[in-house]
Amino acid sequence: MAEIRQNPITKEWVIIATERAKRPDQFTSRKEKRILPAHDPACVFCPGNEHLTPGEVHRIPGADGNWQVRVVPNKFSALSPVGERTRRNEGFLKRTVSGVGIHDVIIETPEHNKTTGLLSAAEVEAVIRCYKQRYFTVTEDPRVELVTIFKNHGEAAGTSLEHPHSQLIATPITSPQVRHRLEEALRWYDEFGECLFCQVLRSELEDEERIVVETDHFVSLVPYASLSPFHMWIFPRRHMASFGEIQPVEMADLARNLQETLARLYHGLDNPDFNYTIRTAPSENRYVKYYHWYISLVPRLTRMAGFEIGSGFFINPTIPEKDAEFLREVKLPIPKAA
Amino acid sequence: MAEIRQNPITKEWVIIATERAKRPDQFTSRKEKRILPAHDPACVFCPGNEHLTPGEVHRIPGADGNWQVRVVPNKFSALSPVGERTRRNEGFLKRTVSGVGIHDVIIETPEHNKTTGLLSAAEVEAVIRCYKQRYFTVTEDPRVELVTIFKNHGEAAGTSLEHPHSQLIATPITSPQVRHRLEEALRWYDEFGECLFCQVLRSELEDEERIVVETDHFVSLVPYASLSPFHMWIFPRRHMASFGEIQPVEMADLARNLQETLARLYHGLDNPDFNYTIRTAPSENRYVKYYHWYISLVPRLTRMAGFEIGSGFFINPTIPEKDAEFLREVKLPIPKAA
Repeated sequence: MAEIRQNPITKEWVIIATERAKRPDQFTSRKEKRILPAHDPACVFCPGNEHLTPGEVHRIPGADGNWQVRVVPNKFSALSPVGERTRRNEGFLKRTVSGVGIHDVIIETPEHNKTTGLLSAAEVEAVIRCYKQRYFTVTEDPRVELVTIFKNHGEAAGTSLEHPHSQLIATPITSPQVRHRLEEALRWYDEFGECLFCQVLRSELEDEERIVVETDHFVSLVPYASLSPFHMWIFPRRHMASFGEIQPVEMADLARNLQETLARLYHGLDNPDFNYTIRTAPSENRYVKYYHWYISLVPRLTRMAGFEIGSGFFINPTIPEKDAEFLREVKLPIPKAA
Repeated sequence: MAEIRQNPITKEWVIIATERAKRPDQFTSRKEKRILPAHDPACVFCPGNEHLTPGEVHRIPGADGNWQVRVVPNKFSALSPVGERTRRNEGFLKRTVSGVGIHDVIIETPEHNKTTGLLSAAEVEAVIRCYKQRYFTVTEDPRVELVTIFKNHGEAAGTSLEHPHSQLIATPITSPQVRHRLEEALRWYDEFGECLFCQVLRSELEDEERIVVETDHFVSLVPYASLSPFHMWIFPRRHMASFGEIQPVEMADLARNLQETLARLYHGLDNPDFNYTIRTAPSENRYVKYYHWYISLVPRLTRMAGFEIGSGFFINPTIPEKDAEFLREVKLPIPKAA
C-alpha cells in the first residue's frame, strides 16, 4: 500500500507509491543529447557578445582580464525597474499592484557548455557571491518585499537558453505561498520554542538515510515527503532566516555542497533538467528566529497533472530513501589536477 | 509596465505582462498532429477490450447494447481501495497516513479519436452523470475526506493515453491547498456576509469582458488574475458548496457549457493539451454557505519554472481580457443534423 507523507514545512501531503515505485535509474534523462561548443558566437551570453546584454550591474573578474560571472538586466524582464509601487483596489475584488521590481540574469560562466555540476567549486562560489551581492543591493530598494533567486536548467525546467545562467526577481509584494510558510513556521516556534527547520535538519541527520551530501556548513537531503523524484533540500546548519546572512566561509562551503549535489544528479541521471530556488525570508522578516532559508532543488522528471494542480496533493513514484541512496552511490569523476 | 493582479479566491498574485504580452494566436498548439483511428485494437479503453479493464464500477449504456461511458478502477491506482485509514506520527516531524482511497478512470466515449470539444453535449452530459454517481458513491466511504475529479488531455498535461478519459481520486485527507481556500472563503463570508465566489461571478458578469460562454446555469470565464494563457473557470450560477448538489437540469447545462468552452479552445488553438479539475468542498463541508464548487481549466501552453515553483507567483504572458475575446470570436463548426 502507498504511504501518504506530510511535508512538515508546508504541511503538503505526498502520495509515495511505495509498492509500485520505480527504480531511481528509470528516471535517467532520455532527452536528446547535443554536444555543445565551449563558445557559441550566436549566444548572447558568450564572451565577445557583451554588447548584446547592456547595463551590466555586477561582474566577478576572471583570468586574463576576462569575466568569470556577469549580472545583467533580463532583456525580457517580467517587472519594470522604473516606476512607483502603487496599489489599486477596484471594488472589492480587483486588486492590482504596479509591476515594478528587478529582474536580473546571472551569467554563471563564460563557457557555453558547462553546467553547475561540471563547474569547479571555486566557480560555483563566484556565482553565489554574485547572488549575495545582488540580494543586498535589491533589498535596499524600498519597493522590494521579496527576493527570489532561481535557476532553470533545460527545457522541461522552463528555459531554452543553453548558456548556464540563473535569475533573480525582486517583487513589490510577498506571495501567499511564502506567507503560509511563515505562518506555519511561527506557529511551530510558538508551540515548541525552536525553529522548525533546525528541528527538521536535526531529525534528518539522526535518520541519516535521506542525506545526500554533508559539508561543514550545509547538508543536502531528499525530504521525508519529497514531492517528486530526487526533489532535494540544501539546508545551512546555522540558523539564518535570510540568505543575506550567509558569511564568506559559508559561501565557499555552499558552493562545494551545491556543486557536488548537482554533480551527483548530472552523472547519476545523465544531465536531467532541473530548477533550484533559494527560499529566503522576506526582507522585513530577515532576522526572525522562526524562519530558516534553504535551497529547494526540483529535477523535472515527472509532470504536474490535473490531480496535483487541482488538489494540491503530489504523487511521487519513487521512494525518498532509495533516491538518496542512489545519489550517494553515484561514482563521480576524479577532478583533474589544477 | 506589467500589472500584478490578485486572484481573489486564492490570494495568489499573477504578473500580467501587459506590455510584452503575446497575441492569443501565438499560443496555437504546435504539437505534432497525428490522425487517430476511431477504434484502436491495441487500446485498452476501446470497445472489444473490456476484459483488459476488469471490475467495472459504473456504466452508461449506449445504442445497440454497447456502452457510452464506463468507469473502471485505475490499473495504476495511486491509492489502495482495501485497507484501513491509519495515521502514524513518528516523533514530531514524520507524519504518515496509509494510502487508502479510490482511484477511478472514467472512459468518456467508445470513440478513440474524440475529445471533449468534439463530443456532443449529450455525450458530455453522460460523462458528468458518471462523475456525480461516482462522487456520491465514494463520498459514502467513511475513509474519504476529499474527492478530486479531473481530466488530463495530452502529453503536456501529464497523460500519454490518447483515448478520452478522466479520473476521480478520493483521498483519506484534505490538502492544505483546499484548507487555505476554505479559510479564505470563510473569512470573506464573515467579513461581507456573502459567498466570495457568488460575488466574484457577479462582478465578472458585470464586467463582461472576460466572459467566454454563458448558459442558463453556468458561466465560463477567464479570471481577472488568470494564472496562465487561457486559464478559465466555469462557475455554477446557483450557490452550491459541493459538486454533489448538481441537479439533472444543471448537469445538462454544464455539459453544454463545458463542451462549448472546450470546443472554442480546440478550434481556436488547434487542440492544445489541457487539464481540468472539479474543485469541490470536502464532504464534511458540503452544505456550507461560504464555499462554492467550480471547474478550473488550465491549458498547458507554458511551463512552471523556478520562479513559480519557488515563490508561488505566476507570470502570465497574455492579457486575460484578450484571451476571452479571442475565444468568444472562434468560429465553431456548424453541428451536423442528428
